[in-house]
Amino acid sequence: MSNTTVSEARTELDDQTELEARRREFGRQLIAAGLLIPTGIDGLYGRGGDFEAIIDGIDFAVRAAAAAAYDTAPRVLRFPPVFPRANFEKTDYIASFPNLTGAINTFTGDNKAHRALLADRENGVDWDGHLESAGTMLVSAACHPAYAGLTGVLDEPVLLDVYGYCFRHEPSLDPARMQAFRMHEYVYVGDAEGAAQHRNSWVQRGLDVLAGLGLDAQAVAANDPFFGRAGRMLAANQREENLKTELVVPLYGGLGEPTAIVSANCHQEHFGENFAITAPDGSVAHSACVGFGMERIALALLRTHGLVINGWPSSVRAALGMPQG
Amino acid sequence: MSNTTVSEARTELDDQTELEARRREFGRQLIAAGLLIPTGIDGLYGRGGDFEAIIDGIDFAVRAAAAAAYDTAPRVLRFPPVFPRANFEKTDYIASFPNLTGAINTFTGDNKAHRALLADRENGVDWDGHLESAGTMLVSAACHPAYAGLTGVLDEPVLLDVYGYCFRHEPSLDPARMQAFRMHEYVYVGDAEGAAQHRNSWVQRGLDVLAGLGLDAQAVAANDPFFGRAGRMLAANQREENLKTELVVPLYGGLGEPTAIVSANCHQEHFGENFAITAPDGSVAHSACVGFGMERIALALLRTHGLVINGWPSSVRAALGMPQG
Repeated sequence: MSNTTVSEARTELDDQTELEARRREFGRQLIAAGLLIPTGIDGLYGRGGDFEAIIDGIDFAVRAAAAAAYDTAPRVLRFPPVFPRANFEKTDYIASFPNLTGAINTFTGDNKAHRALLADRENGVDWDGHLESAGTMLVSAACHPAYAGLTGVLDEPVLLDVYGYCFRHEPSLDPARMQAFRMHEYVYVGDAEGAAQHRNSWVQRGLDVLAGLGLDAQAVAANDPFFGRAGRMLAANQREENLKTELVVPLYGGLGEPTAIVSANCHQEHFGENFAITAPDGSVAHSACVGFGMERIALALLRTHGLVINGWPSSVRAALGMPQG
Repeated sequence: MSNTTVSEARTELDDQTELEARRREFGRQLIAAGLLIPTGIDGLYGRGGDFEAIIDGIDFAVRAAAAAAYDTAPRVLRFPPVFPRANFEKTDYIASFPNLTGAINTFTGDNKAHRALLADRENGVDWDGHLESAGTMLVSAACHPAYAGLTGVLDEPVLLDVYGYCFRHEPSLDPARMQAFRMHEYVYVGDAEGAAQHRNSWVQRGLDVLAGLGLDAQAVAANDPFFGRAGRMLAANQREENLKTELVVPLYGGLGEPTAIVSANCHQEHFGENFAITAPDGSVAHSACVGFGMERIALALLRTHGLVINGWPSSVRAALGMPQG
């Protein structure tokens, strides 16, 4: 290793340490301001009133962009945070992201079994062994519960407006990496050309939404964090075929990678095949989606415009549908 | 058994069958109208745009009542649908309602363990054995995640505005018994007198909100569905001490018990003791809450005013903050 490389490595390490320190400091600031409320577990927070006002404002801006884009409004679907295991299976998420999943267990026993559970609990013994699968999973991506309703032959391409809570088990001190967060998605299901056009149109529309909020975002080719050795190939393939575009914003100046706050994706025939959805032309349906990461956009706004929303630029407050100071 | 008793028993059975039939029929109507979207599991539904508009409208009415009641706005707290196991433990919910709980499991293994999971999956074998506790639970009542943040000595009584998704594992064909639903709560934590006053004031305020929505609700003494033999004593005690008042509306005329759509509860020192919250006077804090069952109120509105929200009475639409037709 040459001296230069050692010095470069040291600088990278310093940067990493500095980045971690800045993330923690940002987290502390958010909590001190009452924007986030700690729960005792990394990546799980309550939200204060101002934080929710920002989320509602972002949703106002996103919906305005969709309303301007479509003559016929996309079909509104809202799902609870849990959905059937059978539909989760069809997403193949357990194959690609097992470490991020959330399976729901519950107690289905009788009085005697309950007494045994409580005895373990009293003795400080883990009581999970007394539970069984509830047949449900936490939603990993807002659009996942939507596909099962489309099984069959589509009369025409479908456009969905889906918004809900997502769960990903990745405990972190980085405020931008939450275990539970909201995603507002616009989903297209139809033919390959329509899917590509949907994804591409939302890259530009997403940039416009973010610019209206005073965020200087860039569109970059990206890949999902597929699990394990096999996952590396999937990730490389996703990049090579240009299936995922992220809109990213630097949260800490030049430190670390910029943070993805919007994601626009072509799924090719993945959901069409697994959920047996046939496009109007008789082929297996293609799909595409754009997902607005609501909490991450809120954090980008707070980093950019400050922690006091009353002091945000009037153009930004107007884009968020907030009353003018 | 006398003839009269046999005949009465037969009538009761007929009523029960008729009630089940009406519930299924209502469920079918809601799905046909696109208000609810079936997921393949009883009690788990997606929501259509009109259903969500009703939920937003109910929230508008509830918030208006709270705004009129308080000079100082209650503190807004919004929690995701999962919260730490450690805080769930302090609610004692696993002792009283084990059958309703939802524990989160996830995969924490390596490549090899993942291959073993996928092999089981491929062979149609249940793969839950490859998962471990994620340290989190689904939220059973909207207020549960709020108490951990109050541990310590309160300077003054606390008033919280909490709204979120709740999970209760009770699969049912009754549309009014969902596994995932939203609850908007106003929570008081302070002294015993303040808690009783909070509960009582919200019984009347709740009735007023519902009357404004054109719902003819009654306040009745009630108890929670505590689990098992020991639970029967807890339920009797709750009724005897008048700790739970439900606002109920008949959904199917005189058939079956009317449905609870709002619940006002005194918790006595339960949460104060378990979360170590001390009232300003130095005693263990008492708490009380009112919970508006958003989905159930929506269903009561749909039963009462019909499935087409554009046709609802203008006074009801005004109370819901909906534009006038």
